[in-house]
Amino acid sequence: MIHITRRERFCAAHMLRNENWDDQKNLEVFGKCSNPNWHGHNFELFVTVKGEVNPLTGFVINLKELSRLIEKKVIQKLDHKNINLDVDFMAGKMASTEVLAIAIWKQLEAGIQEMGGILHCVKLQETENNFVEYYG
Amino acid sequence: MIHITRRERFCAAHMLRNENWDDQKNLEVFGKCSNPNWHGHNFELFVTVKGEVNPLTGFVINLKELSRLIEKKVIQKLDHKNINLDVDFMAGKMASTEVLAIAIWKQLEAGIQEMGGILHCVKLQETENNFVEYYG
Amino acid sequence: MIHITRRERFCAAHMLRNENWDDQKNLEVFGKCSNPNWHGHNFELFVTVKGEVNPLTGFVINLKELSRLIEKKVIQKLDHKNINLDVDFMAGKMASTEVLAIAIWKQLEAGIQEMGGILHCVKLQETENNFVEYYG
Amino acid sequence: MIHITRRERFCAAHMLRNENWDDQKNLEVFGKCSNPNWHGHNFELFVTVKGEVNPLTGFVINLKELSRLIEKKVIQKLDHKNINLDVDFMAGKMASTEVLAIAIWKQLEAGIQEMGGILHCVKLQETENNFVEYYG
Amino acid sequence: MIHITRRERFCAAHMLRNENWDDQKNLEVFGKCSNPNWHGHNFELFVTVKGEVNPLTGFVINLKELSRLIEKKVIQKLDHKNINLDVDFMAGKMASTEVLAIAIWKQLEAGIQEMGGILHCVKLQETENNFVEYYG
Amino acid sequence: MIHITRRERFCAAHMLRNENWDDQKNLEVFGKCSNPNWHGHNFELFVTVKGEVNPLTGFVINLKELSRLIEKKVIQKLDHKNINLDVDFMAGKMASTEVLAIAIWKQLEAGIQEMGGILHCVKLQETENNFVEYYG
Repeated sequence: MIHITRRERFCAAHMLRNENWDDQKNLEVFGKCSNPNWHGHNFELFVTVKGEVNPLTGFVINLKELSRLIEKKVIQKLDHKNINLDVDFMAGKMASTEVLAIAIWKQLEAGIQEMGGILHCVKLQETENNFVEYYG
Repeated sequence: MIHITRRERFCAAHMLRNENWDDQKNLEVFGKCSNPNWHGHNFELFVTVKGEVNPLTGFVINLKELSRLIEKKVIQKLDHKNINLDVDFMAGKMASTEVLAIAIWKQLEAGIQEMGGILHCVKLQETENNFVEYYG
Repeated sequence: MIHITRRERFCAAHMLRNENWDDQKNLEVFGKCSNPNWHGHNFELFVTVKGEVNPLTGFVINLKELSRLIEKKVIQKLDHKNINLDVDFMAGKMASTEVLAIAIWKQLEAGIQEMGGILHCVKLQETENNFVEYYG
Repeated sequence: MIHITRRERFCAAHMLRNENWDDQKNLEVFGKCSNPNWHGHNFELFVTVKGEVNPLTGFVINLKELSRLIEKKVIQKLDHKNINLDVDFMAGKMASTEVLAIAIWKQLEAGIQEMGGILHCVKLQETENNFVEYYG
Repeated sequence: MIHITRRERFCAAHMLRNENWDDQKNLEVFGKCSNPNWHGHNFELFVTVKGEVNPLTGFVINLKELSRLIEKKVIQKLDHKNINLDVDFMAGKMASTEVLAIAIWKQLEAGIQEMGGILHCVKLQETENNFVEYYG
Repeated sequence: MIHITRRERFCAAHMLRNENWDDQKNLEVFGKCSNPNWHGHNFELFVTVKGEVNPLTGFVINLKELSRLIEKKVIQKLDHKNINLDVDFMAGKMASTEVLAIAIWKQLEAGIQEMGGILHCVKLQETENNFVEYYG
C-alpha cells in the first residue's frame, strides 16, 4: 500500500453564522468571520488516495483522472463561488472548514473507488495558519 | 539607502464588475471573477520603505510602528471584509488588485513619511500565481 | 472525528550541550549546535486537535480559543527567549527539538481537554529541512 | 516514541513508459510524461524516523548521520541523474514517483536500523501538486 | 504605471554542455549539470508586465489573456520537454537558465505589446536556491 | 545584462541593544528583541549578481563559485553563531538586519568583482514577515 496526494486550489467567499442566533451571539462565537457582507479565502485542497501500485503503470491511480474527478465534483462547484449560497452540496450546512472537508469527502469517495483507489484523507487549508484533515 | 519590507495578510471577499455593463459583458471580461455572489482570497501585502539607517537603532524605521500603521490604516479595514461593500477607501472603485494596491499606497504614504521613511513599493499578492507592485 | 491544526511561530536562541561532557565530546556529538555563544531559529509549531464537529458552530474547537491557549502556555514563554535559560518548562532539560516538542505537548494537553478537544499531534519545525512530530 | 523528519532534495530526469506498449498506448496512459526525450523535476524527499529520545543527547537519531546516510544511499545516486538510465536501484523498474519512493525505502531501511531508529515514512514530492507517502 | 506578474510552471529536462569542449572540460565547468543522460527541474516562470490601469476594468492587462499567451508561446513548448532537443526557440543555444530567460522574453515581448502592456521582467526560478531575472 | 540570484541560509542568535541606553530605554525601542539572554532566527540570504551572459557557458557567473564565495565570506562566519559576539565583520555594530545586510555586501563585493560579476543586491530575510534589501 502507498498513499498518493493531489493538491488543487479554489478561491471562494463564505461567512460563519448560525441562523438561530442573533448578531451579537454570532459575533461572540465567530468573531470577524460572521461579517454579513462575506469574506473569502484561497483554499488549498489535498486529496490522498491509497492503494497497491499497478505494475503495468507504476501508479496507484492515474493522477490525471483523479485531478479530473476533483475538478468536476469539487473545484467547479467551489471556485470563485460563495460557499453559503452557490454550492449544492453545502446547502443548509455551516460553511466551516471542518464541515466543508467532510462534504468534499462525500463528493469524492465513490468516484475514487470506481477508479480502483481508496480515499484516505481530505485536507483543506484555509489560511497559512489553519487546516483540517478528515479521514472518513 | 536601504529597503525594508513588512508582510501583512488579510482575507476578504470581492467581485470584479463594471456597473455600466450587463451581465454578459461582465462575464466576458471578468470571467468567474464576476460572480454576483462574491468570491474571496487570502491577500498578502508587502510594504517596502526606504531610508537611511539610524545609527542609534540600526533601523531604517521601527517595524513595530510600521506594522501598527498598516494594521490601523489597511488591515482593520480589509480583513474579513467585502472590498466592494465595506471599505471606505475603495468606495466607488473597481475592486481589482491593481486598484486596491494603489489605494493602499494612498492610505500609507503620509504616515510612513511622518515616521521618517519613504514608501517605496506596495506589493499585493492575490493568489500564488498573481501579484501586482505599485511604486507611486 | 476530524483533525484541526493551528500554526504558531516563535523565534528563540538555544544550544545543544550535555553538561556531563567536555567541549570536545559536545562538539563531536552536536557539531556547530554546541556553540557556547548560542545560535537560534524561527520555529514553526503546528498543534493538531481531534474531536467531533459541534453542529451549532461547525467547529471541532474554536481556533481563537486554541490560539489564545497556545499563546499563553507556549509562545509567550518561548518567543524571543533563550530555550536553555529563560523557559520554566524546559529547566534542566536538553534543548533539542524532540525534547521541546514533548514539553510543549505537556503544556497544552490539559487546556485542550478543558476546551472539549483531544490533543493529537505537536509538530515542531526547526528549519526547512528538519521537524519532529509527537503524538503523546 | 517521537518522529523526526529530514528533508533532502535532488533534481533528475525521467520518463514514464511501459516498454511492452507502443507509443500510442504510452501516450494515452502517461500523457506528456511519456515524452521519449525525457523531462525532469526538482524532487523533495522527506525521510521520517521514529524512536525513543536518547536522554544523553535529546535526539531520536543524530540528523547529521541520517543526512549522510541519505546522501550516500539516495542523493548521490539520483541528483542530476536520469532515473531510468543512471540509477542502479531503479534498473528495470517503472520510474514513477510511487515506485521510486518504495525503492528509496529499501535503500534506507537497514542503515536507519543500524543507527538505532525505525524508518517510518518516505515522502517524495514531485511537483507542488503531487506527492506520495510510503510506510513500508 | 503599475506592474502585474503572472506565475506559470513547467517541468523539463536539460543538460549544460559546450559541444566544443571535451567531457573533462565540460565536467570542470558545469559539474554534475553536464551529465550526458540529462537531469531536470520544476521551473517557475514569473512574467511581469507594466502599464496604466484601464479605468473600465481596473486591469493593466487581462491576466487570462496573458496566461493564454504564455501558455501558447512558452509553456506548451517547454513543459515535459527536453530544453536541448525539443524546443524550437532554443535550437543551437546553451540550455542555461540565463539563456532560457532571454529566449522566453523574445517569445513574449511582441504579444504583450499587442495586448497593450509592456514586458518588464522575465524571472525564471530553476531551484529554490537559484533564479535569474531579465529586464530586456 | 541579466541578474542571477543565489539563496543561502544561516541560523544565528542575536539581540538588539544600544549599550548607551539603560534596560528600560532598550525595551521601549527594541521590545522583546532586547532580551539580554538572546534570541535567534533562520536567516535567508539572497545575493543578486548582474552581468553579461558568457557565450561559452551561458552563465553570468558560475553559481558554484558564487556559492563557495558566500560560504567562505559569510555563511561560515554566521551559521550557528552569535551575531553580536562571534562575527568579526560585525564587531562594534548594531546586530540589526539592516546593518547585517550592509556588512554582508562589504564581505562579498570585491570577490564577486574578481569573478567578473557586479554585486547588485543583498536581500536578507529574518522572518517570513520581515526582510531588507541593500543595493550598495
